[in-house]
Amino acid sequence: MFEPIEYADANDDVRAVFDAIKSTRDIPDVNNFWKYLANDPATLKRTWESLAQVMAPGALDPLVKEMIYIAISMSNNCEYCIKSHSASARKQGMSDDMLKELMAVVGMANETNALVNAYRVEVDAALR
Amino acid sequence: MFEPIEYADANDDVRAVFDAIKSTRDIPDVNNFWKYLANDPATLKRTWESLAQVMAPGALDPLVKEMIYIAISMSNNCEYCIKSHSASARKQGMSDDMLKELMAVVGMANETNALVNAYRVEVDAALR
Amino acid sequence: MFEPIEYADANDDVRAVFDAIKSTRDIPDVNNFWKYLANDPATLKRTWESLAQVMAPGALDPLVKEMIYIAISMSNNCEYCIKSHSASARKQGMSDDMLKELMAVVGMANETNALVNAYRVEVDAALR
Amino acid sequence: MFEPIEYADANDDVRAVFDAIKSTRDIPDVNNFWKYLANDPATLKRTWESLAQVMAPGALDPLVKEMIYIAISMSNNCEYCIKSHSASARKQGMSDDMLKELMAVVGMANETNALVNAYRVEVDAALR
Amino acid sequence: MFEPIEYADANDDVRAVFDAIKSTRDIPDVNNFWKYLANDPATLKRTWESLAQVMAPGALDPLVKEMIYIAISMSNNCEYCIKSHSASARKQGMSDDMLKELMAVVGMANETNALVNAYRVEVDAALR
Amino acid sequence: MFEPIEYADANDDVRAVFDAIKSTRDIPDVNNFWKYLANDPATLKRTWESLAQVMAPGALDPLVKEMIYIAISMSNNCEYCIKSHSASARKQGMSDDMLKELMAVVGMANETNALVNAYRVEVDAALR
Repeated sequence: MFEPIEYADANDDVRAVFDAIKSTRDIPDVNNFWKYLANDPATLKRTWESLAQVMAPGALDPLVKEMIYIAISMSNNCEYCIKSHSASARKQGMSDDMLKELMAVVGMANETNALVNAYRVEVDAALR
Repeated sequence: MFEPIEYADANDDVRAVFDAIKSTRDIPDVNNFWKYLANDPATLKRTWESLAQVMAPGALDPLVKEMIYIAISMSNNCEYCIKSHSASARKQGMSDDMLKELMAVVGMANETNALVNAYRVEVDAALR
Repeated sequence: MFEPIEYADANDDVRAVFDAIKSTRDIPDVNNFWKYLANDPATLKRTWESLAQVMAPGALDPLVKEMIYIAISMSNNCEYCIKSHSASARKQGMSDDMLKELMAVVGMANETNALVNAYRVEVDAALR
Repeated sequence: MFEPIEYADANDDVRAVFDAIKSTRDIPDVNNFWKYLANDPATLKRTWESLAQVMAPGALDPLVKEMIYIAISMSNNCEYCIKSHSASARKQGMSDDMLKELMAVVGMANETNALVNAYRVEVDAALR
Repeated sequence: MFEPIEYADANDDVRAVFDAIKSTRDIPDVNNFWKYLANDPATLKRTWESLAQVMAPGALDPLVKEMIYIAISMSNNCEYCIKSHSASARKQGMSDDMLKELMAVVGMANETNALVNAYRVEVDAALR
Repeated sequence: MFEPIEYADANDDVRAVFDAIKSTRDIPDVNNFWKYLANDPATLKRTWESLAQVMAPGALDPLVKEMIYIAISMSNNCEYCIKSHSASARKQGMSDDMLKELMAVVGMANETNALVNAYRVEVDAALR
């Protein structure tokens, strides 16, 4: 449907975002996600700026945010998202043991979410 | 379909699990989730033991695990799960600002997961 | 958005479907699902005929089909669907114990589906 | 599990549906979707007839219907469905720019759906 | 977890966004969605600006965008999202018949997405 | 991210679970699912024991349980899960016709779940 757009073939708006991603992350080239979004420069720019805002350090550590991101992507079965954010989390210090525990929680949360739906569990008065 | 089972009406197997939950969490009564599962004592016992294993401190902090749990539950729209695990995370120190940032990540992850699916983004060679 | 349409207020096309549902199921009135679909008579007719075909006895017992239906509805968290098809399954002989085991499978399947996604398990050569 | 069934190997019931699809769409052969469904001739026939009814021109333009179809398929991450309905929408005049905007809406809708779930937003009195 | 924030209780950043929403949409007050997001002013501002960009007229008519939005929200079962965007689409001219056809497509797309997954339909060479 | 662990490379805890799976199922080697989970021996053991408990004969026939499992996996689009549990169900007597009917139910359930969400069908008083 759409092909990834390389830096050499990109217009100035796209190059400006690519440059921002590369300098922020200190990487020589951007991932395919950005090259596909480059087909729609407005969405590229908005998504990069939103992501930069959302994933920035704040009350939560950036690594914790990456792990939440990975968990959602596993639950949604988005292979690309799992792999790209796992690579990013690795750089920020996620160990194998941390990833394994994360995966166990993802599995368990999906099981208990399903059990809650199945039993139609009513919210406790104390939790409302 | 099934009604929650109170301690007073529970059999010995169920009471043993309820007692374990109450003492582990230092609470006077268990949440509705457990009272519904009590209709199926084998599932009650297995779920409690699995959850205790998965959510225990390890390479990840228990609060990080709770937040991953909440994030999955928000993405799956399981109201009960969001509320019960948020209550638990609050006790372990989750602030309003932490929860807000978590929610922003959940929203963003669902958006970019959808964009990846929409553009059929291929996994970068470096991420394989 | 749309209100349920009662038999007394329905046009002839809708009444014909309502009559078919009532006589097939030997019930005095149709469920709300059909009364809402009655806002769109073509969808009402098509859905009823499709459902009658799909749920009819064949290689699978109708009760097994109902239980598969309930399982999907629990996994999708469709409260109405769970309740209406559970009522139907009960009439066909589903016991409490059968329902509890069904729910345990739904929970477990969602957990292992998530684990497979998380670990990116490759399909075994023998399973291809 | 099942292999696609080619016209030459199909029985008369299947051929009748294949012929209807080919003449309606003015194409020399049907897509794989139909060849797989041909393993179950009743489902093949029902699905084709339902689809023809649902996607026909009415209050909505067929292209708008195709785009809604694509959007659902992107949100559900059904690659086959995205590709086959995009091909169909292209024939009906969907431009690259239309597709990009559609994808931006799919991404945004999934984000705000998740935010609504996360914040447990109550329905406004005026919207009930 | 969080309560909606009314204009009278909002800080200047939040009021600026509320004012922008009210003047853009020519409404006396913003919906609950925005009042909940007001707990996180950065997310409020980013979401409003993103939504304004994504939903603006372009290659697709704003009403078509609203209908795609509604379709995703129905498929995800987000009640609030369905109701708020249906209200908005109504204002832009969506008739009952248009909404009914939209819903029929949503149902059908979810069925065929599931059938494609079930049969593991391979992408046709011509669609790649 | 993680590679499958073969028996020859496994530690004693993992081998004990692999041996249990092989003897219970009377197979010469375990599937990839277990080899990936072997990276996390506690999750491997817990998942095997849970699955053995949940899938055991009880009020429901093991084949019915396998079919419910497959149905959930189709609805969630977990290819590995569909294929591995279909292989297992085949061994227990699932015929082609049973599988086709199962798939038709999965499709139909997803359609009607979506229609219920779309129409916001209220639960009938008699079903509450």
